[in-house]
Amino acid sequence: MFMPRTVLEEKLREILAEDIGQGDITTGLIVPAQTAVEAIVVCKEAGVAAGIEEAKVLLESLDLKAEILVKDGERIRTQQILIKISGNARTILSVERTLLNLVSRMSGIATTTRNLTEKLRRSGAKARIACTRKTAPGLLYFDKKAVQVGGGDTHRLHLDDMILIKDNHIAVAGSVEKAVKKAKEQASLSKKIEVEVTKTEDVLTAVEAGADIIMLDNFSPKQTAKAVAFLKGKKLREKVLLEASGGITAENVEVFASTGVDIVSLGEITNNTKALDVSLEIVKLK
Amino acid sequence: MFMPRTVLEEKLREILAEDIGQGDITTGLIVPAQTAVEAIVVCKEAGVAAGIEEAKVLLESLDLKAEILVKDGERIRTQQILIKISGNARTILSVERTLLNLVSRMSGIATTTRNLTEKLRRSGAKARIACTRKTAPGLLYFDKKAVQVGGGDTHRLHLDDMILIKDNHIAVAGSVEKAVKKAKEQASLSKKIEVEVTKTEDVLTAVEAGADIIMLDNFSPKQTAKAVAFLKGKKLREKVLLEASGGITAENVEVFASTGVDIVSLGEITNNTKALDVSLEIVKLK
Amino acid sequence: MFMPRTVLEEKLREILAEDIGQGDITTGLIVPAQTAVEAIVVCKEAGVAAGIEEAKVLLESLDLKAEILVKDGERIRTQQILIKISGNARTILSVERTLLNLVSRMSGIATTTRNLTEKLRRSGAKARIACTRKTAPGLLYFDKKAVQVGGGDTHRLHLDDMILIKDNHIAVAGSVEKAVKKAKEQASLSKKIEVEVTKTEDVLTAVEAGADIIMLDNFSPKQTAKAVAFLKGKKLREKVLLEASGGITAENVEVFASTGVDIVSLGEITNNTKALDVSLEIVKLK
Amino acid sequence: MFMPRTVLEEKLREILAEDIGQGDITTGLIVPAQTAVEAIVVCKEAGVAAGIEEAKVLLESLDLKAEILVKDGERIRTQQILIKISGNARTILSVERTLLNLVSRMSGIATTTRNLTEKLRRSGAKARIACTRKTAPGLLYFDKKAVQVGGGDTHRLHLDDMILIKDNHIAVAGSVEKAVKKAKEQASLSKKIEVEVTKTEDVLTAVEAGADIIMLDNFSPKQTAKAVAFLKGKKLREKVLLEASGGITAENVEVFASTGVDIVSLGEITNNTKALDVSLEIVKLK
Amino acid sequence: MFMPRTVLEEKLREILAEDIGQGDITTGLIVPAQTAVEAIVVCKEAGVAAGIEEAKVLLESLDLKAEILVKDGERIRTQQILIKISGNARTILSVERTLLNLVSRMSGIATTTRNLTEKLRRSGAKARIACTRKTAPGLLYFDKKAVQVGGGDTHRLHLDDMILIKDNHIAVAGSVEKAVKKAKEQASLSKKIEVEVTKTEDVLTAVEAGADIIMLDNFSPKQTAKAVAFLKGKKLREKVLLEASGGITAENVEVFASTGVDIVSLGEITNNTKALDVSLEIVKLK
Amino acid sequence: MFMPRTVLEEKLREILAEDIGQGDITTGLIVPAQTAVEAIVVCKEAGVAAGIEEAKVLLESLDLKAEILVKDGERIRTQQILIKISGNARTILSVERTLLNLVSRMSGIATTTRNLTEKLRRSGAKARIACTRKTAPGLLYFDKKAVQVGGGDTHRLHLDDMILIKDNHIAVAGSVEKAVKKAKEQASLSKKIEVEVTKTEDVLTAVEAGADIIMLDNFSPKQTAKAVAFLKGKKLREKVLLEASGGITAENVEVFASTGVDIVSLGEITNNTKALDVSLEIVKLK
Repeated sequence: MFMPRTVLEEKLREILAEDIGQGDITTGLIVPAQTAVEAIVVCKEAGVAAGIEEAKVLLESLDLKAEILVKDGERIRTQQILIKISGNARTILSVERTLLNLVSRMSGIATTTRNLTEKLRRSGAKARIACTRKTAPGLLYFDKKAVQVGGGDTHRLHLDDMILIKDNHIAVAGSVEKAVKKAKEQASLSKKIEVEVTKTEDVLTAVEAGADIIMLDNFSPKQTAKAVAFLKGKKLREKVLLEASGGITAENVEVFASTGVDIVSLGEITNNTKALDVSLEIVKLK
Repeated sequence: MFMPRTVLEEKLREILAEDIGQGDITTGLIVPAQTAVEAIVVCKEAGVAAGIEEAKVLLESLDLKAEILVKDGERIRTQQILIKISGNARTILSVERTLLNLVSRMSGIATTTRNLTEKLRRSGAKARIACTRKTAPGLLYFDKKAVQVGGGDTHRLHLDDMILIKDNHIAVAGSVEKAVKKAKEQASLSKKIEVEVTKTEDVLTAVEAGADIIMLDNFSPKQTAKAVAFLKGKKLREKVLLEASGGITAENVEVFASTGVDIVSLGEITNNTKALDVSLEIVKLK
Repeated sequence: MFMPRTVLEEKLREILAEDIGQGDITTGLIVPAQTAVEAIVVCKEAGVAAGIEEAKVLLESLDLKAEILVKDGERIRTQQILIKISGNARTILSVERTLLNLVSRMSGIATTTRNLTEKLRRSGAKARIACTRKTAPGLLYFDKKAVQVGGGDTHRLHLDDMILIKDNHIAVAGSVEKAVKKAKEQASLSKKIEVEVTKTEDVLTAVEAGADIIMLDNFSPKQTAKAVAFLKGKKLREKVLLEASGGITAENVEVFASTGVDIVSLGEITNNTKALDVSLEIVKLK
Repeated sequence: MFMPRTVLEEKLREILAEDIGQGDITTGLIVPAQTAVEAIVVCKEAGVAAGIEEAKVLLESLDLKAEILVKDGERIRTQQILIKISGNARTILSVERTLLNLVSRMSGIATTTRNLTEKLRRSGAKARIACTRKTAPGLLYFDKKAVQVGGGDTHRLHLDDMILIKDNHIAVAGSVEKAVKKAKEQASLSKKIEVEVTKTEDVLTAVEAGADIIMLDNFSPKQTAKAVAFLKGKKLREKVLLEASGGITAENVEVFASTGVDIVSLGEITNNTKALDVSLEIVKLK
Repeated sequence: MFMPRTVLEEKLREILAEDIGQGDITTGLIVPAQTAVEAIVVCKEAGVAAGIEEAKVLLESLDLKAEILVKDGERIRTQQILIKISGNARTILSVERTLLNLVSRMSGIATTTRNLTEKLRRSGAKARIACTRKTAPGLLYFDKKAVQVGGGDTHRLHLDDMILIKDNHIAVAGSVEKAVKKAKEQASLSKKIEVEVTKTEDVLTAVEAGADIIMLDNFSPKQTAKAVAFLKGKKLREKVLLEASGGITAENVEVFASTGVDIVSLGEITNNTKALDVSLEIVKLK
Repeated sequence: MFMPRTVLEEKLREILAEDIGQGDITTGLIVPAQTAVEAIVVCKEAGVAAGIEEAKVLLESLDLKAEILVKDGERIRTQQILIKISGNARTILSVERTLLNLVSRMSGIATTTRNLTEKLRRSGAKARIACTRKTAPGLLYFDKKAVQVGGGDTHRLHLDDMILIKDNHIAVAGSVEKAVKKAKEQASLSKKIEVEVTKTEDVLTAVEAGADIIMLDNFSPKQTAKAVAFLKGKKLREKVLLEASGGITAENVEVFASTGVDIVSLGEITNNTKALDVSLEIVKLK
């Protein structure tokens, strides 16, 4: 998910512009135009850093100097300094909240993702943690990027990058079989096809119709394990990836992962976010 | 926070466009162009509805018919139908996730806000619950609107609508007194002036310098109560509004509110969001 | 009203882009690509400089060097050089008109504002000069900024930064009292409430209902003075700010100001603008 | 200058969005969501109507009904009703100021233009009144459209629609002759070539080099008449259009026009605008 | 590639806006504002229709009535009427060129694609025709959509929807093996991995490293056939898709297809476009 | 057609953003963040360079160093290096396709234009080659710029820069005479008037009505020559420019040009484009 600087800058500019409105009236009144300062972005709780690259681009686009002290994906501890900033005081104070909102949301998501990933690693499960498209509205890029930084699978980036046939598509198509076949015939060879199934019977249908990934939607751990075993019995396990989805939380994620699926996906990674506590402090007036 | 339709439609279009990318390839392959359906948006857990007006505008902008069954701000129960939608199936399926992300985040924020508000009402405290600018990046409008729907105070909408002198401004200005005086002299008469203080001594300074609102930042409940008493003793309590801020959570909010402050503000309302579980189901193929 | 550079650059780019269309065909034909020049922006009549900061950002965004010789808000005399520019000749000639339109409109507004402000100062009145939202369409930021530079009060920056209850709101609400009470109950604590009254009787109603500012709309100077006296008599004068508005011009502004109101607002500052005559001259070919 | 609806709507939406900010907080608090009203746009002083088509598009884009009672370009008298509006009260109140700013600026420009045009007609001069690119920043379209509605010549719409060689281009090119010849050789056959001259001698040079229009810049009326006579003497008068420009005002416009030039251009039409006084009144609550 | 109406309308509005500039001055002068007409879009040469859905959305967004007489993907003959339009004459004339440019480019691409596809079908080859990202700048959506309408494979829609490791990536990574392994380890499970190889030896390496698709770049037909045979011999043919790419044209496409590859991709489909001749004729004045 | 850097950068950013989508996932996985490389843009076939200036602006906007080795408009030979690039490898690989699409389309158009122009020069005809508005949708600027670079006439840049009365305008106006007269009376003096005629009789009508340019639409070479002779006979040839248009191709362009017209216009220059083969190669890893 490498984003060239000009494209990222424009996304960041739009976010900043909303917060600025007609101008930062407080800063304009209190802070002299030429004042320069040094400031630090400090973490107030432990977690995983994310949004640091984005922060750097945002700061530099405003002609501020940004020294990065931690890389995206690194574990950070309480009171650790993440970024040193120097430059125009008005600019720093005007961008402060936008900067912190970005870093704190992205770091929060990365932290959650990393915690889940490590939990699975400790349990010995090989399944990968994935997020869904249940992000904050309009924040697909930032939320997915944070998941990636945290070590999770970004899953679909938007509606054009994989065929994912869900319950409502099947309702219109008539059956899992019809839906998958229709997709298989016409889809670009560059795309994988995933289908959501709600019954164990449909797993075989989906594999035979040509699905690349099968999402076991709202299966209990027991049902999930049964589906895995069933495919192994048919010697079809290697032909598809299996994704457990629905009702999975930090509490039960290991149980699902231990069933032998390839992917365990949780909407709550991006939907139930706890922002990491990050703050900006002026450390020196020049 | 009334937003005329064309302005809101544009915000919603940008959110939708990010998710669509180069097009919904699944829907384009599986769902015939002319298929019409009826669908419902259903709540999977109890809470407070928000984002319903925004959902209606989004759906109607896409030539879908949207029948609203619940108003923004109403309590909703599990399995309650919020919206009935009818129209082109491809369009409905393409907008599904964007629509749900909007309603679920906004309803989640409104639910949290309402719960806090009712907790205070039950405790007999008169303080108002307020949010901060710690929102998801770029979602100031939607997050603040959800807080309002939930009965909370939206506080600053962006950087241009109130003078709020924070720690970093004071660091540059030299002192609370200097900062407030500078603001008082030059600020537009249309704006209130709020100042963040970290010591009880500064409360009096701030009032005398002309602040309209004083934010007691990271005061303990005891310190907060002392500050209130101090101003009462000086017969200055009526001259300002007092806001408790920093370290306040759902657990301790009543304690802070009972100190006699006017506003209790929590970043976590918008920063630590739990999206309400909402889904879209096709109920009829035409 | 401090505006971070990237946000301001985008506003300026849009203005420039309209004037450029598909390209400056004259410059492209006449001026060689590599020609560098020095140019000056000169004032052709006396006034108050404004738009200089914006000009600098515009020029620098185009990789031109801009040396600012006068600060926003300074008095300037005929033939005074405001800015020295050096760089690519094509770029300078292409941006010339956009640059001059910006500086001349903003300086014109600042000059008018300053003249009014000084007139009041000389008369001994303490009232502040304010503008309204009667700006050129889409130029709220630049027009308000120019008023601020000229020493005037910017009043509302847009529709979200103060509750201002006008005649048409009162027509819908039923009465001044109902409208103000409704606002007082529900408005964010961060916002002031202003109400427009057309009868002296309503002044008291408005104060008692909790308005922070009362706009005396189309009151004659005599009626204005009477309203001030009335509130003093009731010992309520200190509780509100009073704004005289409607029918006020450069001719009668002192009369209104001398009645003892706090604010005198004139639509004509931004609505009846006389642009200051400013021109760009090439002084050196390199 | 016909502008298709979607393109115009987008320009208008951007203007409205700036004024709305995060929402019209007054209207949201005071006016119930479903209230419908009828309102009128009334003229408070006599003039020429302009911006009426733009107003209709703006209102209809917001799902309001707009009955147009006067056409762009018609003379209007004090208290005349220009537009009847009906629909949602919140929407009408939120768009009120944007609507009025548009109609009042455009009508003000059209009125000035018409007055100048009629003055020339009465004097018997055949010269046409033209505006320049000295408009409010970013308002080229609206300002030029208003001039056209008022009966004036729009001159260049932006930098790509005619070759106009000005003083600074000549400074770079070396001479009027060199500049015009360079343009004549390479310019698209679809474009006219105009050149600004500051000395009578250059008039002949310009004609012989192939200019289509000659701008007599800052010529006195006497010099202007002399240049006209000179070309007549050379039998070259019919080969070019002559434009008088610089230092022309409403006071001396007839003198310049009577010299026999084809075009008299005034920056002040768009640069020194007096907005026509227009207001919106609610006439019926439904 | 289903695109919801509002998202598509915005893309089309931007294209129209570029052509309109400050307004259609010819139409504004010649055509009365209220004139209504009926017009037809006629094909002047045989081909395959594409862009018809986009044309309908464009016309309807301008309040024109559009009756579609041919569906996207249908073969059309000379003089066939594609669309009947009725509505405002100014609007129709202003959008004419934008509309025709869209339909003629997209139909040209669809025609080329269909011709290639049918050529392969006739030859008995099962390979699919695919386009590349060599489109007109900024027209990825429209060009890819036209390829799909013509029966071709859209391949990557942009840089985020499949891992495609090209020569320059391999140059940086060090080898085909290293590059594919790196991708395989970290890529989202939702994405296929394609790798470009330039030597037969690398085919096996790529398969073993886990590539899903192998692009045989600039292989001769003989080399291509050899690579296919080699994989068959290793019983690995079913494990990957093979794409022939580079140097393929309408002339030699069957030779490449007959080698047994799955995909034959040609940049010239979108890069060497012959627009279909389409025109708009007014057939009735109302 | 000089385009200031910020305006051009924004056009280029939008094109790049479409191709990037949610990020270049291949480059993000394979190429380390800090890797720097040197790369070259090489031409794989002979032609005329165009888009080089645009390429430089695109590359520099991404903080890449771009050394230009050939100027727009120069003849280039196979294997010639056009640009040397150095900088961040991820950025270079992400922009590669956008860059090449731009240079190859523009160079293709310039090459075609130059070939046509030289063909006419060799034949001794003085007519100028012009393009039309039949460009790729949304690419008016880039396509017209390429034509200019190739030595052709850009004709109208969009709908606002010349009055061009076409068949459909005449159908509405009633006759060539009525249409031209209407335009002549009201058009801005800054604009030329061109009219399309389909019959020799209308040529005289058009000249007498005041047209500046007459487009002989779909005239055979013989009819074209006759029209030229007719005007000469009437001593009106010098009063207008004549443009041959319709049915003109690379094959017959000399025949049309030899008839004595001033302009020969071909839609196929921009509508039937053959992109020049250009590629990017990494030459050095740092």
